[in-house]
Amino acid sequence: MSEAAKTLDGWYCLHDFRSIDWASWKMLSSNERESAIAEFRKFLFKLEATQEIKAGSHSFYSVIGQKADFMLMILRPTMAELNVIETEFNKLKIAEFTIPAYSYVSVVELSNYLSSDEDPYANPQIRARLYPELPKSEYVCFYPMDKRRDGNDNWYMLPMKERGSLMRSHGMIGRQYAGLVKQIITGSVGFDDYEWGVTLYADDVLQFKKLIYEMRFDEVSARYGEFGSFFVGHLLTDEKFDQMMHVN
Amino acid sequence: MSEAAKTLDGWYCLHDFRSIDWASWKMLSSNERESAIAEFRKFLFKLEATQEIKAGSHSFYSVIGQKADFMLMILRPTMAELNVIETEFNKLKIAEFTIPAYSYVSVVELSNYLSSDEDPYANPQIRARLYPELPKSEYVCFYPMDKRRDGNDNWYMLPMKERGSLMRSHGMIGRQYAGLVKQIITGSVGFDDYEWGVTLYADDVLQFKKLIYEMRFDEVSARYGEFGSFFVGHLLTDEKFDQMMHVN
Amino acid sequence: MSEAAKTLDGWYCLHDFRSIDWASWKMLSSNERESAIAEFRKFLFKLEATQEIKAGSHSFYSVIGQKADFMLMILRPTMAELNVIETEFNKLKIAEFTIPAYSYVSVVELSNYLSSDEDPYANPQIRARLYPELPKSEYVCFYPMDKRRDGNDNWYMLPMKERGSLMRSHGMIGRQYAGLVKQIITGSVGFDDYEWGVTLYADDVLQFKKLIYEMRFDEVSARYGEFGSFFVGHLLTDEKFDQMMHVN
Amino acid sequence: MSEAAKTLDGWYCLHDFRSIDWASWKMLSSNERESAIAEFRKFLFKLEATQEIKAGSHSFYSVIGQKADFMLMILRPTMAELNVIETEFNKLKIAEFTIPAYSYVSVVELSNYLSSDEDPYANPQIRARLYPELPKSEYVCFYPMDKRRDGNDNWYMLPMKERGSLMRSHGMIGRQYAGLVKQIITGSVGFDDYEWGVTLYADDVLQFKKLIYEMRFDEVSARYGEFGSFFVGHLLTDEKFDQMMHVN
Amino acid sequence: MSEAAKTLDGWYCLHDFRSIDWASWKMLSSNERESAIAEFRKFLFKLEATQEIKAGSHSFYSVIGQKADFMLMILRPTMAELNVIETEFNKLKIAEFTIPAYSYVSVVELSNYLSSDEDPYANPQIRARLYPELPKSEYVCFYPMDKRRDGNDNWYMLPMKERGSLMRSHGMIGRQYAGLVKQIITGSVGFDDYEWGVTLYADDVLQFKKLIYEMRFDEVSARYGEFGSFFVGHLLTDEKFDQMMHVN
Repeated sequence: MSEAAKTLDGWYCLHDFRSIDWASWKMLSSNERESAIAEFRKFLFKLEATQEIKAGSHSFYSVIGQKADFMLMILRPTMAELNVIETEFNKLKIAEFTIPAYSYVSVVELSNYLSSDEDPYANPQIRARLYPELPKSEYVCFYPMDKRRDGNDNWYMLPMKERGSLMRSHGMIGRQYAGLVKQIITGSVGFDDYEWGVTLYADDVLQFKKLIYEMRFDEVSARYGEFGSFFVGHLLTDEKFDQMMHVN
Repeated sequence: MSEAAKTLDGWYCLHDFRSIDWASWKMLSSNERESAIAEFRKFLFKLEATQEIKAGSHSFYSVIGQKADFMLMILRPTMAELNVIETEFNKLKIAEFTIPAYSYVSVVELSNYLSSDEDPYANPQIRARLYPELPKSEYVCFYPMDKRRDGNDNWYMLPMKERGSLMRSHGMIGRQYAGLVKQIITGSVGFDDYEWGVTLYADDVLQFKKLIYEMRFDEVSARYGEFGSFFVGHLLTDEKFDQMMHVN
Repeated sequence: MSEAAKTLDGWYCLHDFRSIDWASWKMLSSNERESAIAEFRKFLFKLEATQEIKAGSHSFYSVIGQKADFMLMILRPTMAELNVIETEFNKLKIAEFTIPAYSYVSVVELSNYLSSDEDPYANPQIRARLYPELPKSEYVCFYPMDKRRDGNDNWYMLPMKERGSLMRSHGMIGRQYAGLVKQIITGSVGFDDYEWGVTLYADDVLQFKKLIYEMRFDEVSARYGEFGSFFVGHLLTDEKFDQMMHVN
Repeated sequence: MSEAAKTLDGWYCLHDFRSIDWASWKMLSSNERESAIAEFRKFLFKLEATQEIKAGSHSFYSVIGQKADFMLMILRPTMAELNVIETEFNKLKIAEFTIPAYSYVSVVELSNYLSSDEDPYANPQIRARLYPELPKSEYVCFYPMDKRRDGNDNWYMLPMKERGSLMRSHGMIGRQYAGLVKQIITGSVGFDDYEWGVTLYADDVLQFKKLIYEMRFDEVSARYGEFGSFFVGHLLTDEKFDQMMHVN
Repeated sequence: MSEAAKTLDGWYCLHDFRSIDWASWKMLSSNERESAIAEFRKFLFKLEATQEIKAGSHSFYSVIGQKADFMLMILRPTMAELNVIETEFNKLKIAEFTIPAYSYVSVVELSNYLSSDEDPYANPQIRARLYPELPKSEYVCFYPMDKRRDGNDNWYMLPMKERGSLMRSHGMIGRQYAGLVKQIITGSVGFDDYEWGVTLYADDVLQFKKLIYEMRFDEVSARYGEFGSFFVGHLLTDEKFDQMMHVN
């Protein structure tokens, strides 16, 4: 048996993708739409209040293409809180005009391939990564992924040393994009259908493609990466959300 | 031909996952909702009465993410009883506001890799595992799985001795989580699309991830495990179910 | 080219799985429901009359889990008759309250791996298997399957002699379940998406699991079996069908 | 690079499979149903007129099982004409009571593995196959297929000579069914998700199974065939279509 | 690690496929339909105005078969603009009568396998390909694709030199179709589920099949190509769109 990688685990994470039922939304009166939006803003405001006291964080992006219309990503200290927020959203007036499109359940994860004497959970830099305030970059990219277990390309049969060395060189690519792309890795073994969720943030959307394409030539992705659906989104500020939902 | 593993089989099992049609639920009057909930409570109460006389058991959990809103898992001495309960649920008022999301049909199973002279069905410890009272842990995790039959990675072509030895070392990992995670294995060959269902219970949801991830590096999972969808849920006490279904 | 296995082909077969739209069914008045059931009984009665004159046969089972609520399996001398019956069912009142869940088109098939001088179609024992009266066992199990064609595990590239020898030892397992499980094999090459349908009947539902699991360790299944969805059902007598459809 | 097989291409082809929404159809008044059928007959009559002047051809079959209720297959000299006919059908009254079930876009194709000096498009026998009048056999069978490109089983990496020799022996099987099964091969590379569509016609539906099963043991199918869904249908004469759509 | 191919990236691209809900469309009054079409024309007119000032481009085609009824493909300098246009379309009256069928998010991409000293983005010929005015050919073909990473057929593990040499010979096939088929390659790594989208334009629809089939025998496709769904469409001029949407 290969030695399992040790992980550090932070806040629990729900990615909630929704499509808008435009035909029904347009059938509301202008007053009804305004009141549904106002109620939703109160919901968002509560999320922001939680973020300000560093008891969680969230991202709100529109999604390009038919896979969804928007993504709400939420981080919280417990899985139970995610469940409560999800139900709260489902009871909002605006939720009646959305159709579930995709969701992903995971937990912020740091791989601990390098051994360490200190308690990593006490390290402020590590804490900042386990309990992050999510960026407000122009664009977001989300995809779930697995490490492959297929014939001779079986990540989980590799010796830990080899996995560590492969991951280090893989990480070197990511580091070249420091300042351009911010990456949140969430682990989902036991929580959802893939093993990890990858959420990337950038102001230049092209950097997602450059980073992921460059990595694809690295052995970790080339031989061992299995990817789910890719979602790309654009930051929903208050103003852009208003424009998106506005009907003449 | 490899010798088939012998199994001990206990209560039949139905995992029933449902999504709530929130828009329709909210359209009911407050009285109608209360009466639908009261009727459902009577249904749950009957399940509890059966559990008290040890003629079956059940679990009731909300589900995080869009895959479902809740899971009702039911154990009974016969498959026919599961069918009756399922139909009874379908006729409840509340069922009109649920959408079938996923289900799984199986039977509680113990692998009997170690030979034994005594009748295992007479052994009280084994009986307690074949006809278990399901835990009331904070969290539940369910996933179906197969043993792989693919090229050189074909579990069913391995000699029994090798399978037994692999399973023993696999079981060692599980044992490290004793007290943290309780596991119910149900067999579903001939009953549903995968060969087994795995239902895990824990008060700390992170233990699901730790256990399954550690096991993934073990040859039984790494080379021979094929996994279906993963569902993670939070215990629905009376109070939490009330909160979940309550509409202002 | 490998020599093709010769088959004997009997009655054509349609497995028709339906889910019940309970919410709509409950909206009918009690009279409307009774009249829809009475009409359906007349339809079933015609099927039974056909069965009595040995011009066909059928099975009617409820299905456990969300895959379907019931299965109607019909055998007839021609494919055209199946088509007529299917359309007749679709025009019944009760059909408006069902949702197509799955279907399978095939023909009763006997593999003729042993050569024979006589005309098998004249042999009464073979005729009884090609044009069977379907059992009324407590439980039914249905699944479609393929023989694998994948790299080194390619059934159709094996010499006929090897296939015959593998099938014989495979059949030995089945024979151990004689009296416990009755099996109807239907061929579906050119008719539906898999190559065969397997319909099993037993009074003890656990025997399905035992039989299929034991077979899975046999090379024919272990290396060459590809399985579709598994459905398990409980016999719908008149009384049980009444109970199932009854609404308070 | 292997040399590409040359093809001869004839009429463009649309297979259009539809399910009938029986509940809605039954809600029409008898007059409305008759008028919808009369309008559809006019549409079919136009197709027949085109067929008579040899400017196209079509097939109209009911489909056994839940995959669809009927298939309309249309051949025309241009892809644009298929698009026009498809839209014309969609605007018919009867189309409101159908649900799209599957479709396939392709072009009648002859493989030209044998070299030839003459212009094949001038050859009357070849023209008859490129621009065929579709048979009115009792039964039809349709399935799409690919040639496999998987590891060592990669059709497109074989030398042309080997492909030609394999195809010739494959064709020998087909020839044994001359008079029993008529076959129309349509190419769909660039037009739809598989590389070919296969449409078979026979008065004895069992011949589909015999032919395809026998071919499956031939290396072309055994090692290199990947098959999509199989549809089997029964000829819809005017009278049978009337019976099918008739509601008491 | 293999060296990653460098790419040049131009305008962002959204392929938006929609099916028409004909039954609902026909329920509108003739006036309502005309007004919905007029509103949509204004939307198209704005797209054309953008195209005229070379700040983007678009294609509008009907789609043959049930996969969709039309495709709107849009090129813009930023991903955000695609998102705005998509939302604008969703709010149109006509959108209420369309059903999302498929979409694809990508960016015009040129592979830069040949090294170069000059700044390619300054080269007018390259600019014309990165920021193209889409052709108005009679037919369009779209499909997404991946380069395979499977066992010994792993494109991303090949040395760059080998990839370059394979791509050059692959490109030679395309060049034989110059004047017959115009090709737009869009990269979608990080943006959508495949790695590339391929959009082909031709006046003779058969050239799509000939080109793609010929390429399939080339090692790049034969060993390394994985293809998604294929869509084929016919140019929607104003007149043809009118005819398509017209109801008697």
